[in-house]
Amino acid sequence: MENITRILFDLLIMFAAAKIMGEIFERIKQPTVIGEILAGMLLGPYIFGLIHPLQVETFHVYQVLAEIGVIILLFTIGLHIRVDDILRVGRTSSIVGVLGIILPFFFGYLYTLTMEHTTVEAMFIGAAMVATSVGITARVFADLGILDSRVAKVILGAAVIDDILGLLVLAVVTGVGKGAISYVKITLITLEAVGFIFFLIIIGKRLIYRVAPTLNFFKSKNAPFALALLLCLGLSAVASYIDLAAIIGAFMAGMVLAELNAQFRFSAKFESLYDFLVPFFFVVMGTQVDLSVFTKFNLIGAALILTLFAILGKLIGCGLGAFNLGFKEASVVGVGMVPRGEVGMIIASIGLGMGIISTDLYSIVIFMVIATTLLTPPVLAKMISKKFVKKKEAEKVEELPVDL
Amino acid sequence: MENITRILFDLLIMFAAAKIMGEIFERIKQPTVIGEILAGMLLGPYIFGLIHPLQVETFHVYQVLAEIGVIILLFTIGLHIRVDDILRVGRTSSIVGVLGIILPFFFGYLYTLTMEHTTVEAMFIGAAMVATSVGITARVFADLGILDSRVAKVILGAAVIDDILGLLVLAVVTGVGKGAISYVKITLITLEAVGFIFFLIIIGKRLIYRVAPTLNFFKSKNAPFALALLLCLGLSAVASYIDLAAIIGAFMAGMVLAELNAQFRFSAKFESLYDFLVPFFFVVMGTQVDLSVFTKFNLIGAALILTLFAILGKLIGCGLGAFNLGFKEASVVGVGMVPRGEVGMIIASIGLGMGIISTDLYSIVIFMVIATTLLTPPVLAKMISKKFVKKKEAEKVEELPVDL
Repeated sequence: MENITRILFDLLIMFAAAKIMGEIFERIKQPTVIGEILAGMLLGPYIFGLIHPLQVETFHVYQVLAEIGVIILLFTIGLHIRVDDILRVGRTSSIVGVLGIILPFFFGYLYTLTMEHTTVEAMFIGAAMVATSVGITARVFADLGILDSRVAKVILGAAVIDDILGLLVLAVVTGVGKGAISYVKITLITLEAVGFIFFLIIIGKRLIYRVAPTLNFFKSKNAPFALALLLCLGLSAVASYIDLAAIIGAFMAGMVLAELNAQFRFSAKFESLYDFLVPFFFVVMGTQVDLSVFTKFNLIGAALILTLFAILGKLIGCGLGAFNLGFKEASVVGVGMVPRGEVGMIIASIGLGMGIISTDLYSIVIFMVIATTLLTPPVLAKMISKKFVKKKEAEKVEELPVDL
Repeated sequence: MENITRILFDLLIMFAAAKIMGEIFERIKQPTVIGEILAGMLLGPYIFGLIHPLQVETFHVYQVLAEIGVIILLFTIGLHIRVDDILRVGRTSSIVGVLGIILPFFFGYLYTLTMEHTTVEAMFIGAAMVATSVGITARVFADLGILDSRVAKVILGAAVIDDILGLLVLAVVTGVGKGAISYVKITLITLEAVGFIFFLIIIGKRLIYRVAPTLNFFKSKNAPFALALLLCLGLSAVASYIDLAAIIGAFMAGMVLAELNAQFRFSAKFESLYDFLVPFFFVVMGTQVDLSVFTKFNLIGAALILTLFAILGKLIGCGLGAFNLGFKEASVVGVGMVPRGEVGMIIASIGLGMGIISTDLYSIVIFMVIATTLLTPPVLAKMISKKFVKKKEAEKVEELPVDL
């Protein structure tokens, strides 16, 4: 424990940098998450060199903190998605969600293969292209006061489908990444992942209503919080143990508890844990981006092309899915689904951590996520302002604590 | 990061064990902290062997989590002590506090020397004997509904003095532990510690009233929470850097912010961070207790004698300090100050972490803390029930989140 002073200073500068960049991005009306990743890039080896991924002993500690952070993040996202919401999303949302997964996955997969990477690498990049971060779009809609519009509802519904399918893809890809690839194995892992997720969706809701009344049985202060945290840690550990990603367990724990969120105020109770730990995830992510990648001409090209595919994948896939709304609204849905966010980066960082994707590919994915996230809001605002009535006083959505 | 599954399972069992034992202790009306330490002993190498301090790579991570936990703990305690409270405690409280520090320190110091340990070891044990954990006594008083009595006020006031002086002793002892011992050096370290603490007490309060209005300047969500956490991490890092213990910085950060606690609801905001991280501190502590110590006859003897000195030190010191209240009330004050708690254990664990005190001595201190804590409530209740009027419906104190 001699290095505790060092660790405390590192935590201090990481947290401070995240908050300062977050504040700046808040002011220029950009997602704070991007600010936090940039904070990590600034602190990392290529600019200020204050946090070095190669100083294994201390960096390992930050990685664990980051991992707990991302577990809390996915748990909190899950808390806002009730099983009923999924069963209730309309036909259009479902089609938008599914098509919006398939196209980007294959675009990413095939393009990575053409760059002469392995199949597993290509699968990871495909998976990282998949999940829309709908927070961005939701915020633009909220600012324009059209969160109740049909387009907004289709997008929000599709995003839920999208998150779950995205995690399913991740589960399969992680499983494949951990073992040899054979069709039998892929099928087994897919079944395992589907089983894990659907078992929890089906059983979770019934069980939780039975368990809820017994919570008053406990005398300890904040017993419901402790039990929620135990479920979150427990399912994360189990998911990790059966070769799915830990965050899938965390997400499912959140979703199982979503029914009780209003009653026990879980998302409020987890707030400080969220505020403290989640920024570490994005900062640690930023420190691992190899900025020297972008001095190489061919890699800049690859980053731009992957970004283009990421945009086209959602534009075409989701646009087609929403075609019954007419061309104009379908294109708003297409654009609205473009931004990638946490989940894409999480998948890339899992691939990096498993030693499957290279720092080059990792850095390219981070570029793609940042680019799609920054490009969408202005385009969306332009498309919508022509089409919908603007309200003077934009109402705020009842937000996730998720910053995007 | 291959061991993340292992780490998640370990965190799960540590947290689960802490909560289960906490619940049991809550039910048998004993302090939950003791339950958490026992949970650590159960998981540790001498009983179930699930968590091994010698598995360095993973245990180092738990130690960092524990360290952040104890930082949050001391920060939260600080949040409840306002500078004005210290300046306002009466003459009796001050004398009780000071005498209650001096006697136990010298009892512990001298007894350890007679066991043929080094001077630095003896100083650490003396320091660990010093701080009263007043939470226990406060809870007994609250249960009896006499929290407004003169005795209770004297004890609560003395406890504040006691905490600060205890941390001062720790600061000096830690400084001495890190370098060679010479009177010049001890004097310098004492001055440094006194300077650090008084600088923050005097400057902190003035500064914080100037800073408070500017907090609304920030646009980020939960900016006050983030700034409070930054101050906590910052002062902890600085304290650790200048060879004081990190927790002293955390405590001072809390005390500086205590003025704003009501306005910004800091202690509520830090709750989940507290609930998640603090148990790890006590569990990790428990895992480091060498239970085989208590199979050795002479060490059991030493533990009992140290406990006796711990009791006599407070009984005589604090009793004398409160003598102007008359014999009966003075003896209630003496008994009420007996329980040691977190701070004593923290000091022992710092000594262990620095390689200064042996596992034997560490285990003996833990025994002393547990014994004084468990013995006090029944004795106190008996003394008081004869003397004061009992209220039927005991009011609860506006409690610290501290469990003791």
